[in-house]
Amino acid sequence: MVRVVEGEGTDRIEAISDGVFAIVLTLLVLQFEVPTVPPAQADSQLPSQLLEFQSLLFSYLLSFFAVGLYWVIHQNIFQQIEHHDRILLYLNLLFLLTISFLPFPTELVGTYSTRLTWGLYATNFALVGVTMTATWWYAARRGFTTEEISTHDAWLISLRGLTAPAVFLFSMLVSVVSLNLAYWTPLLIVPLQVWWVRRYRSLQDEL
Amino acid sequence: MVRVVEGEGTDRIEAISDGVFAIVLTLLVLQFEVPTVPPAQADSQLPSQLLEFQSLLFSYLLSFFAVGLYWVIHQNIFQQIEHHDRILLYLNLLFLLTISFLPFPTELVGTYSTRLTWGLYATNFALVGVTMTATWWYAARRGFTTEEISTHDAWLISLRGLTAPAVFLFSMLVSVVSLNLAYWTPLLIVPLQVWWVRRYRSLQDEL
Amino acid sequence: MVRVVEGEGTDRIEAISDGVFAIVLTLLVLQFEVPTVPPAQADSQLPSQLLEFQSLLFSYLLSFFAVGLYWVIHQNIFQQIEHHDRILLYLNLLFLLTISFLPFPTELVGTYSTRLTWGLYATNFALVGVTMTATWWYAARRGFTTEEISTHDAWLISLRGLTAPAVFLFSMLVSVVSLNLAYWTPLLIVPLQVWWVRRYRSLQDEL
Amino acid sequence: MVRVVEGEGTDRIEAISDGVFAIVLTLLVLQFEVPTVPPAQADSQLPSQLLEFQSLLFSYLLSFFAVGLYWVIHQNIFQQIEHHDRILLYLNLLFLLTISFLPFPTELVGTYSTRLTWGLYATNFALVGVTMTATWWYAARRGFTTEEISTHDAWLISLRGLTAPAVFLFSMLVSVVSLNLAYWTPLLIVPLQVWWVRRYRSLQDEL
Repeated sequence: MVRVVEGEGTDRIEAISDGVFAIVLTLLVLQFEVPTVPPAQADSQLPSQLLEFQSLLFSYLLSFFAVGLYWVIHQNIFQQIEHHDRILLYLNLLFLLTISFLPFPTELVGTYSTRLTWGLYATNFALVGVTMTATWWYAARRGFTTEEISTHDAWLISLRGLTAPAVFLFSMLVSVVSLNLAYWTPLLIVPLQVWWVRRYRSLQDEL
Repeated sequence: MVRVVEGEGTDRIEAISDGVFAIVLTLLVLQFEVPTVPPAQADSQLPSQLLEFQSLLFSYLLSFFAVGLYWVIHQNIFQQIEHHDRILLYLNLLFLLTISFLPFPTELVGTYSTRLTWGLYATNFALVGVTMTATWWYAARRGFTTEEISTHDAWLISLRGLTAPAVFLFSMLVSVVSLNLAYWTPLLIVPLQVWWVRRYRSLQDEL
Repeated sequence: MVRVVEGEGTDRIEAISDGVFAIVLTLLVLQFEVPTVPPAQADSQLPSQLLEFQSLLFSYLLSFFAVGLYWVIHQNIFQQIEHHDRILLYLNLLFLLTISFLPFPTELVGTYSTRLTWGLYATNFALVGVTMTATWWYAARRGFTTEEISTHDAWLISLRGLTAPAVFLFSMLVSVVSLNLAYWTPLLIVPLQVWWVRRYRSLQDEL
Repeated sequence: MVRVVEGEGTDRIEAISDGVFAIVLTLLVLQFEVPTVPPAQADSQLPSQLLEFQSLLFSYLLSFFAVGLYWVIHQNIFQQIEHHDRILLYLNLLFLLTISFLPFPTELVGTYSTRLTWGLYATNFALVGVTMTATWWYAARRGFTTEEISTHDAWLISLRGLTAPAVFLFSMLVSVVSLNLAYWTPLLIVPLQVWWVRRYRSLQDEL
């Protein structure tokens, strides 16, 4: 009998995901276009032209590390998952959709600094986190993980995945007050992740 | 003796295929180009400019999920295949040709809404399904699969692969009546796939 | 002790090579740019615009299958190789350089039909074959293969790798007489490969 | 219990890294744009247009081989590493950031020959080497390697990683005297690497 879609292993899920991650990380640089200046004036005009890339560089670095963060979480989560069914494949594809769309809002917000462009950017990242967490939640509840995961643990790990979406949505509120402040809001993810990891470990040690 | 092309395993077939799938899924976003508006008017002019991406977004999402669907089928089929010969390699390359060409008709139909562009788009997707099914059919008939597959089963699984091409060709007929209706026709693939999976399972259970 | 570069296995050589192959196969489509016509006249003007892609389509298909052919040979050769040293890594990188450069001459010859552009295209493909064969020859002579390969066999397999370069160089001569004929010359590779495989097998059977 | 980020194996670190390496190697060719000349004058005007790609070709080849060199070092180093923690993942991402940014300064220096563009290019490559060495140093000191590595050996291997950054920083000094000389300075990396490998081996043999 030929199995339909259900199956052991997640090798190819990880392969296509790593492919999409690697391409997105690398495509982001394509938004930097070599400026056009007369070759004879390159020495004098290029420096100011390159300085204009500042805000693009900011959104580039932010996207790179946010995508990197999700890669770290994705590879951590899929170390636990050893089975899959059709729904898991499609949930992961939904996640990859949100990841692969990122270069567009990244360039948009790097080119035009408005509440609208930041809103699109933050929404895209929020969807990344939500679809990633849905993928994990589904796998955990269906028992696709190497060890059985208690509802409590599944919740805790889902919470980690929802930290970043919450911060990005919060940054949209911040942008109403100050757009500049909104740009720096995602840095909150770093201490929140560190705090989560410590909290998770201490909870595990108690058991 | 050095074997010529025949061989165990399909690791590298899967690797190059996952690579092509991942790149196509990610390249699709490149058709969204950041609009050019005067920075000072970004707030007022950008919203309407972004709304114009509507039809591009539609063809983008349709392509993403259709490619995703084929990835799901490809990885399911290659879980069954454990040998290969030169012809299988070339059939798979033919399939990858049709997959890797998709970004062009996707952008075309997203930019110009005509019967011709939809026809090219639907034809490309039909070819994707036909070459994929040919690959599977060849592998099944040559006995490259993990378990021997009866002609009956090989037919059933080939039928699944031909569902999408049939729907896309049907959508070309629909486009003669109404182009808008044609755009939504591919959604028929979803219930047809679900129906097929149920039917396949009940047939297996009878044995 | 930490080994320097020499090592077992060729997993990552194959991984980076499959990556480059997959990207080149997929990037080739980027040379098709959606033509710009007034939306209202899309119905009437698009067909003739799309017909102009004819020669680009030709060079696209030729490149796709030539790259595909080299992927088939590459994966066949690396099934035999199980060790590597630094020189093998660099020879393979030299091969990847020639593969990854292909999209440029492909678009060039697809845009301008001249003896010069065909010469560049054919030279690039000749270098692909030469560097691939050098990689194989080095691995075989250094004893990196799974089974010891006789000088005779190593020569035979090198000959296969040199078929395509010879045909491409020959096509440059043909282009002096007729450019159109030169475009079709690479098709000679197909019967030559088939002939080689048969010849190789009959030679093996004699032993 | 679900492990948080720490874990056995470096498969996916290598997968995403090979992906980024492969894409950067292949994206570099995108800076060559087919020149626009009237089709009728292609024969006469194309040769001179193509000759203008000379300096772009130089920076292309330099980047290709420098990235290739780092891939060789990366795959050598990760053959030794068998565990990872969160910090190693982020150090490797930092390294991938510097690798994936390369296409921009490569095109920049290939288009405009100034001390500034060379400075940016050399700085980028210096950062590649520094982040790669930091990744290795961290893994070695944390005991993530297959065999325990003495502080002495860890230093020696770190020195290798720092050769290229040192040469690139030196080339920035050279560019003050002569920009042309600076372009050729990176070739110093080749004899320095060869010398290092010999020295490393003789030191190992003494033990």
